[in-house]
Amino acid sequence: MTAFASIAAFEAALADLARPDAAAIAQARERQAVLTKPAGSLGRLEDIAIFLAGWQGRPRPRIDKARAAIFAGNHGFTVHGVSAFPPSVTAQMVANFEAGGAAINALSGAAGLELKVVALDLDRPTADFAAAAAMSATDCLDALNAGAGAVESDLDLLVVGEMGIGNSTAAAALCARSFGGSAADWVGPGTGVDAEGIGRKIKVVERALEIHGYAANSAFETLRRVGGREIAAIAGAVLRARQLGVPVVLDGFISCSAIAPLAADNPAITDHCLAGHCSAEPGHARLLAKLGLEPLLSLGMRLGEGSGAAVAAGVIRTALAAHNQMATFAEAAVSASL
Amino acid sequence: MTAFASIAAFEAALADLARPDAAAIAQARERQAVLTKPAGSLGRLEDIAIFLAGWQGRPRPRIDKARAAIFAGNHGFTVHGVSAFPPSVTAQMVANFEAGGAAINALSGAAGLELKVVALDLDRPTADFAAAAAMSATDCLDALNAGAGAVESDLDLLVVGEMGIGNSTAAAALCARSFGGSAADWVGPGTGVDAEGIGRKIKVVERALEIHGYAANSAFETLRRVGGREIAAIAGAVLRARQLGVPVVLDGFISCSAIAPLAADNPAITDHCLAGHCSAEPGHARLLAKLGLEPLLSLGMRLGEGSGAAVAAGVIRTALAAHNQMATFAEAAVSASL
Repeated sequence: MTAFASIAAFEAALADLARPDAAAIAQARERQAVLTKPAGSLGRLEDIAIFLAGWQGRPRPRIDKARAAIFAGNHGFTVHGVSAFPPSVTAQMVANFEAGGAAINALSGAAGLELKVVALDLDRPTADFAAAAAMSATDCLDALNAGAGAVESDLDLLVVGEMGIGNSTAAAALCARSFGGSAADWVGPGTGVDAEGIGRKIKVVERALEIHGYAANSAFETLRRVGGREIAAIAGAVLRARQLGVPVVLDGFISCSAIAPLAADNPAITDHCLAGHCSAEPGHARLLAKLGLEPLLSLGMRLGEGSGAAVAAGVIRTALAAHNQMATFAEAAVSASL
Repeated sequence: MTAFASIAAFEAALADLARPDAAAIAQARERQAVLTKPAGSLGRLEDIAIFLAGWQGRPRPRIDKARAAIFAGNHGFTVHGVSAFPPSVTAQMVANFEAGGAAINALSGAAGLELKVVALDLDRPTADFAAAAAMSATDCLDALNAGAGAVESDLDLLVVGEMGIGNSTAAAALCARSFGGSAADWVGPGTGVDAEGIGRKIKVVERALEIHGYAANSAFETLRRVGGREIAAIAGAVLRARQLGVPVVLDGFISCSAIAPLAADNPAITDHCLAGHCSAEPGHARLLAKLGLEPLLSLGMRLGEGSGAAVAAGVIRTALAAHNQMATFAEAAVSASL
């Protein structure tokens, strides 16, 4: 089944976003108020439990089946020398994911997430978006659907991540087109380029903003022109998760940049999303603020692959452990207050 | 066996602190540099793995056996109305710990920590430290040794926590005596007292600082005069962990305040400690800065019981998963850089 049969179907889905279950939220909040702790003293762990209650539609949310969906794609603009690594590393890292040797293998395992790796036409990089649209409309729609296809309604939580040498340059272009600001406002060192490399990234993004500036600033057109296959796939996965009532944990700068064009069209798209962490990539904090998301973790990570979101998924599990396992004041015969 | 046979033995232990294993640190750092990720891109997860390598004395640190040791005590100064809960709640919560219904039960379970609860003479509160020393020298030494007795050399990680109605007032007094500042600088709402309650807490702390101001400002005298049994136990546990090469995760304001007098005497005491989180209690951020510790998490928690440290222990596990399970560039045949 294809989630988004056409551009219009994608746009209709983005315009008509489901809301969380208000009754489940109210019941989860009531439960938090009578657990054996001072009211509010578990801080964001309480918020997480209530958030998951709303999106899972049950006052006692669970994480029985959770997935880290990692999308990989290659980018034509890498000819401009914007990464510390050669484009061949995208496929090498996909092989590493499949062999179990990457950070996301270890981190998703530690968080009890099944890992699904979706490599998108790695031998067919997108076009250089400093010269033309990165993708045709068909290619972009295919990528959105590839992302949507990685989500099923029986998931209790979805972690999204990406791999694509050079894609922090695409992320900067997506942010600038979605939320304004200059190329320099959004470009950073990525995997670790030096000042000259950052200069090259800025020029590529400036050029992209210039040549695509005439085009409609819709979510689809922005993803198609300055995104990439792995980025469009994340956008499709997050939108599909919303349709299916699956809460999402976003990862770093690039994963969040996939949502930027959607949020520019409909800011409510982030309502079923938690920001797993704030990356060390400078644009991420700015992007999270634009998306209205407060990160759970801030550990100086800047790897991608869903790595920060996977670590956050472990914290999210602890929030549910407290919510579901703690005794109430009445059950434990503890005096509630003076 | 008694870890600290006398005050002098405690003071000698604090003066002569073990150092981490430099060779294990160097080997762990070398390994991090060749794992399949951009150098440094796992941020604090890399630092944690290297830290544990140093204190466990092996380049591939493990967490096979980890413990959350939670100490409970009662305080004489609660007669002044400094808490939102009656003192009887300390024993009720210890019963809740033993029955498995508290936050720390759920959170230590989620992090794979065995839970050890040590209740210290709950029916014999300390003296009101606004009128006299909280403990005799013998009582304080007993509490230090009770803490030390909760640590064994086969532990790979120790999480410390506390329960003691009113003890954020003791924590404020410990901080002010250890690092200076006024009572108001260190007092906060604790479990949730209102502005009047905060005013009462400030007065109690001011009075304590006044009547004990003449006394020697040593770690032992500060713990004895304005601490409490559960607080001295944490101090003893942390010092004993250092002797045994067991890395420690500190919890919130009160757990950290137990280390404040030790750090005032010998700042190196925090070297084998990670700050699990920064609590919502306002004094905690200030205290962490004085201790030279950067918290791993900042989730607005303010419960105590070791709860924040237990959540952090889960993150620490993920750091080791990445360190120990990831492939190197050579193993995975991934190009290291351009």
